[in-house]
Amino acid sequence: MELRKVAVLGAGSWGTALGRLLALPQQQVQIWARRPELAKEINSYRENRRYLPGVLLPARVRASSDLDEVLKNASILLIAVPSSALQETLEKINGKVSPETLIINTTKGLEPKTFRRPSEIYKAQLSEELYQRVVTLSGPSHAEEVARDIPTTVVLSSENRASAEEAQDLLMRPHFRVYTNPDLIGVELGGALKNIIALSCGVAEGLGFGDNTKAALVTRGLAEISRLGIEMGASPATFSGLAGLGDLVVTCTSKHSRNMRFGILLGKGKSCSDALQQIGQTVEGIRTTEAAYQLCQHKNIKMPITVECYKVLFEGLSPSEAVENLMQRSKTNEVEEGVKDWS
Amino acid sequence: MELRKVAVLGAGSWGTALGRLLALPQQQVQIWARRPELAKEINSYRENRRYLPGVLLPARVRASSDLDEVLKNASILLIAVPSSALQETLEKINGKVSPETLIINTTKGLEPKTFRRPSEIYKAQLSEELYQRVVTLSGPSHAEEVARDIPTTVVLSSENRASAEEAQDLLMRPHFRVYTNPDLIGVELGGALKNIIALSCGVAEGLGFGDNTKAALVTRGLAEISRLGIEMGASPATFSGLAGLGDLVVTCTSKHSRNMRFGILLGKGKSCSDALQQIGQTVEGIRTTEAAYQLCQHKNIKMPITVECYKVLFEGLSPSEAVENLMQRSKTNEVEEGVKDWS
Repeated sequence: MELRKVAVLGAGSWGTALGRLLALPQQQVQIWARRPELAKEINSYRENRRYLPGVLLPARVRASSDLDEVLKNASILLIAVPSSALQETLEKINGKVSPETLIINTTKGLEPKTFRRPSEIYKAQLSEELYQRVVTLSGPSHAEEVARDIPTTVVLSSENRASAEEAQDLLMRPHFRVYTNPDLIGVELGGALKNIIALSCGVAEGLGFGDNTKAALVTRGLAEISRLGIEMGASPATFSGLAGLGDLVVTCTSKHSRNMRFGILLGKGKSCSDALQQIGQTVEGIRTTEAAYQLCQHKNIKMPITVECYKVLFEGLSPSEAVENLMQRSKTNEVEEGVKDWS
Repeated sequence: MELRKVAVLGAGSWGTALGRLLALPQQQVQIWARRPELAKEINSYRENRRYLPGVLLPARVRASSDLDEVLKNASILLIAVPSSALQETLEKINGKVSPETLIINTTKGLEPKTFRRPSEIYKAQLSEELYQRVVTLSGPSHAEEVARDIPTTVVLSSENRASAEEAQDLLMRPHFRVYTNPDLIGVELGGALKNIIALSCGVAEGLGFGDNTKAALVTRGLAEISRLGIEMGASPATFSGLAGLGDLVVTCTSKHSRNMRFGILLGKGKSCSDALQQIGQTVEGIRTTEAAYQLCQHKNIKMPITVECYKVLFEGLSPSEAVENLMQRSKTNEVEEGVKDWS
C-alpha cells in the first residue's frame, strides 16, 4: 500500500480536526503551524491544547512550522486558514504544489475589502489546471464535534466534478457524511451570508428576546440571503441545503459563534467598538453585512434584516429601533410575488 | 365604537396568550374552559396559573365553562383545541355560530387515525359559507413568549383571501407580525410534519450527539418533508417559510416540545411505552411519523429520516442503528436529481 501524504495548512481547530480525520493507515498527515511553539506543543502532547483541547491525535499526525517540509511530496492539501490570510497563503505555496495535488479548501467568508469569495482568490492565484483540483468544504460542522466523532454532514463543491467526487471518497466516514453539490457560488455565499443572520440572532438574544424571534430571523433571514445569492448566480436549493440552512442553524444555535457573541454584546447595549474589543478577534459578519448591504442597494433586492443590521453596525441605529423597524413594516404576503397566490 | 366579542375555545397556553392579544379596547374576550374550576381560577386570579403562569390578563378577558354563553354574539371565534378534540368541538358549536363569524384556527397536526388536516375537519363539519371564514394560524410561536410580547412572526392561511386579510388586520401588533400565505395545504403540513424531525432531533440529543447532528437533521429533514408536501399539493416556498422552517427551528431548539422530550427519552434508551408514560400527554410526532411513513411508501418518496424514525417507533430498531443507517447510505449529491448539475 502506497503511503499518501496530507498537508494541512492552518493549525486551528478545524485544520486539526480534519487532520485527525484524514489520518488513516495509508495517510500521513502533517499540519503546518505558523508558530514553531504551537507545532512543538502539538507534537509533544499529541494534542492541540490551544485550539482543540481534549482531543488526542493519532501518531500519524505531526505538526511543523516549516512550510516547505509540510508541502513536500503532499498529494493532498487541506487549507484551513482565515479568509484574510488566504491570498498570502496561496502566494507562499506558489510553485511548490504539483498540479495533481487535490486541494481541499475549508476557508469560508468573504475577503476583507475586496469581498472576494475563496474560490475567486484561488482562481486568481493558481494555474487553471490546479484550480480544477480545488474543492470547497462547507456545512454545519463545529470542529469540536467532528473531532469527537459526533455525526456530522458536510457538502463539497468544485468547478470540477471529478475533484469533488475524489474528495468525497477521501472524507466519507461512518460519522462524517459528505454530499457533493455543483453550485460553488451558492455553497460559498451560504457560508458567508449566514454570518449576517447569526449576528442579528445575537442582537435579538442580547435584547432578551426568545426562540420565536430567532426562528423568525432564521426563516426570513434565509429568504433574504437566498434572494441575494440567486441574483449572484447561486441555485436556490443550495440555500435550503447544508451550506445554507444547515450552517445557519448551527451558527445561530451555538455559543461558539463569534458573530453571535458579538451580536449579543450589541443587543446588551455595547457599542460596536467595545464589543469588537471584547471579542478580540475578527467578526466576519461585519464585513459580510457591509458587502451584502452594498450589493442589495445596488441590485435593488429586498433585504430588510441586512439593512437594519447595517444601520446598527455603521450608522448608530439602536438595536431596539432596528427590531421595531423590522416588525412594523407594512403587512405582506409571505411568499414572493409571482409565486402561487390566491386565485 | 362598537364592542366586538371574541370567543376563544380552549384555555391552554395558546388560547390564553391569543385571548390576551385580542383583548383590545374595542374587543371583549371570553375564553371557554371545559372545566369550571379552571374558568373560575382564571377569573379569580386574572391569570391562567395552570397553563400560562406569570401572565396577568386584562380585565377584558373572562373565562367561562358555559359554551353557549361564550359563543353568544361572538363575531370572532378562535379555536385552540388539540387536533384530537377538534371534530368534537366543531360538533358542539354546530348551529350556534353565525355565518359572518371569522374563525381563527390554531389547531395543528393530523387527526389521530384519520390523519386529516385541520381544514379537512372544518370543511366536513361546517357549511361552505362558514368554511370560507376559517383562517389557520401557524408559525414559530411559543405561547409563553407571545404572552410576554416577545417579537414573533406567524403566518395565516385560508381558502379565502378576504378572510385571511381580515384576520391579519385583527392580529397585527408591534411585537406580533402576521404574514398571509395562500398555500393552506403547505401551512398545515408544515405544522404537522415538523414533529417527525423534532422527535428525531430529540433522539439525537438523547444519544449524546451535538449541534452538527441536529443541524443535519433539520436541513435534510426539511428537504424530505418538503418532498412529501409537494407531492400532496403544497408549494415548496411554504416549507422554507414560517410554517415550515420557522416552526421546525423553534421546535427543534426548544425544551418545551413534547416531541423533542419524547425523542430524548428514546435516545437515552427508554422504550416507546416507557417514554410515552413519562411524558404523560399525546406525542403528535408518533402518529405523524406513521402517516408520513405510509404515504412515502405508497407514493415512493425518499424520506430516509422518517423511515428510520418509523422503524424506531414501530419496529423496535435501536436509535443508534437508525443513525448508522442514515449516515452510511450510499454517497450522493446534495441537490435533487433534475436540478442544476455539473455540466
